[in-house]
Amino acid sequence: MKLASLKHGRDGKLVVVSDDLAWCADASHIAPTLQAALDDWDRLLPDLIVLATDVRNQAIPLDRFHEHDAASPLPRAYQWADGSAYVNHVALVRQARSAEMPDTFWHDPLMYQGGSDGFLGPRDPIPLADESWGCDLEAEVVVVTGDVPLGASREQALDAILLVGLTNDVSLRNLIPGELAKGFGFFQSKPASAFSPVFVTPDALGDWWKDGKLHRKLMVDLNGEPFGRAEAGEDMTFDFGTLVAHAAKTRRLGAGTIVGSGTVSNRDSDGGPGKPIAEGGVGYSCLAEIRTIETINGGKPVTPFLKAGDTIRIWAEDDKHHPIFGVIEQTVGA
Amino acid sequence: MKLASLKHGRDGKLVVVSDDLAWCADASHIAPTLQAALDDWDRLLPDLIVLATDVRNQAIPLDRFHEHDAASPLPRAYQWADGSAYVNHVALVRQARSAEMPDTFWHDPLMYQGGSDGFLGPRDPIPLADESWGCDLEAEVVVVTGDVPLGASREQALDAILLVGLTNDVSLRNLIPGELAKGFGFFQSKPASAFSPVFVTPDALGDWWKDGKLHRKLMVDLNGEPFGRAEAGEDMTFDFGTLVAHAAKTRRLGAGTIVGSGTVSNRDSDGGPGKPIAEGGVGYSCLAEIRTIETINGGKPVTPFLKAGDTIRIWAEDDKHHPIFGVIEQTVGA
Repeated sequence: MKLASLKHGRDGKLVVVSDDLAWCADASHIAPTLQAALDDWDRLLPDLIVLATDVRNQAIPLDRFHEHDAASPLPRAYQWADGSAYVNHVALVRQARSAEMPDTFWHDPLMYQGGSDGFLGPRDPIPLADESWGCDLEAEVVVVTGDVPLGASREQALDAILLVGLTNDVSLRNLIPGELAKGFGFFQSKPASAFSPVFVTPDALGDWWKDGKLHRKLMVDLNGEPFGRAEAGEDMTFDFGTLVAHAAKTRRLGAGTIVGSGTVSNRDSDGGPGKPIAEGGVGYSCLAEIRTIETINGGKPVTPFLKAGDTIRIWAEDDKHHPIFGVIEQTVGA
Repeated sequence: MKLASLKHGRDGKLVVVSDDLAWCADASHIAPTLQAALDDWDRLLPDLIVLATDVRNQAIPLDRFHEHDAASPLPRAYQWADGSAYVNHVALVRQARSAEMPDTFWHDPLMYQGGSDGFLGPRDPIPLADESWGCDLEAEVVVVTGDVPLGASREQALDAILLVGLTNDVSLRNLIPGELAKGFGFFQSKPASAFSPVFVTPDALGDWWKDGKLHRKLMVDLNGEPFGRAEAGEDMTFDFGTLVAHAAKTRRLGAGTIVGSGTVSNRDSDGGPGKPIAEGGVGYSCLAEIRTIETINGGKPVTPFLKAGDTIRIWAEDDKHHPIFGVIEQTVGA
């Protein structure tokens, strides 16, 4: 089942979307918003499944689904917890600034608490007040959970995953060193993220969802050129079950919690850092990584951060090259 | 005007509470929840004021208000951003671990993104799975904002403050060093916070709310004994206008954002660290601070962290010793 929220008020209007993303049906008689559906998931799921079946069979009148009418599926959320599960990415960034990476990073997930009071829509511009802040994209996989009890096991955590999607976790790289030095984590360096137009239940992903990982390429284009084609199912040191259990170690998680994978990143086939697509590699899911590799190889970064007018696209495809979750497509605003 | 949320579903049921906290009136015909009221504040405020006037004049049938029936006013929220505005507290903690405090800490607010997907009620036990985590209370002042635009000035931020209250920002001190070392800020070390039963509009606080600060003593009792009596209006390096503007520097803030002051802390009258109440001082608003002073004075902390069965009370009083915001009263659970 595929769910989206059409732009409407602060929380959007819930619709069930056809598998090919061409059609949708209003679901607001079942739950007005996606958050309302998640709050009462077990009771409402059977009705949503009936509606999704009707959509699939075109058994009811349908509306065209236009991705540019969609808000992020949760236009605001009660929790956005972002991991950094592709430890390869972290190791590279550390290497570039000659900082040692503790061995524990391979065993104990990194996770930060993100702001969730308002997300950008998947086609909304990225508001950037100051280019000197060093604006970057971060293409990631996310899951949405139901209620997760305090101290949940990985298996309980996996069972609590209700939806899967993608995000562009916008980062202001030049504000990060100052914030990290203060020791309180990210705040100003992490403005609003955008999410894919559609979130999908794990069962509808079939073999693409396995062992708590999404086994599809994460496609990233920058200014119309292929920039990233990393395989999200590879080099993910911590699967989503482990990430959700980490988040729930000392507190319960409320329904509608969004947990992110961190920037998807693959090693090159020779085990070294990934190469650009033009050089036969799988590319990158953020600018910081290519800048890091440029620094390691040539002493300084060459690729600039995002500036006004730059465009990014983030999506994942089925075998016929149709987007599974729709497309995040954003232009950087002045 | 004083507002509370009676325990009901995930988001509580909005009531207007009498100034003496003895009576309340159902406000759900105006807005079912406090979040709904905050989402549409300008339109709904006149109706809430009429209801509050009726409560004051006992012009309508009223219910008894029992604080133990109250959830946190926002039982869950879209944002909980906690500052550390009493820099005196930060300086002490650093001194105890012989870490230098950068001078910028006096000019640039510290703030972390807290979890907001579910708060404890003001009389709920603190669930503590493992005493070795080093459970601490942190008594703080909080404000709730309406929508705040990206880049808001301090004055705009002050205007956006709609409600004032108190919190117990529960912290797991022994998990903090490990998390800070990872550089991603607090996550597991900050389980669910609890808030005062009642939040109050700034106008109803009169002179107690001035220059973006609450000018009342923050009362903290530990196991029935006075532990803290710090003056919240003193030694607050960054007022709430500055804290909210800091939070809005790179992104807009959604209505219902809660911003915290950080642990309230006063210098002693001689300019040195605060003394215990038994020694004529104003005491402390968290255990870490007294442990820090014990470390500075005697080489190691003496006061233990919270253990099962310990009780804490946090409140602020009017001139007749009546609680303004009600009382946070929690027992540490096994």
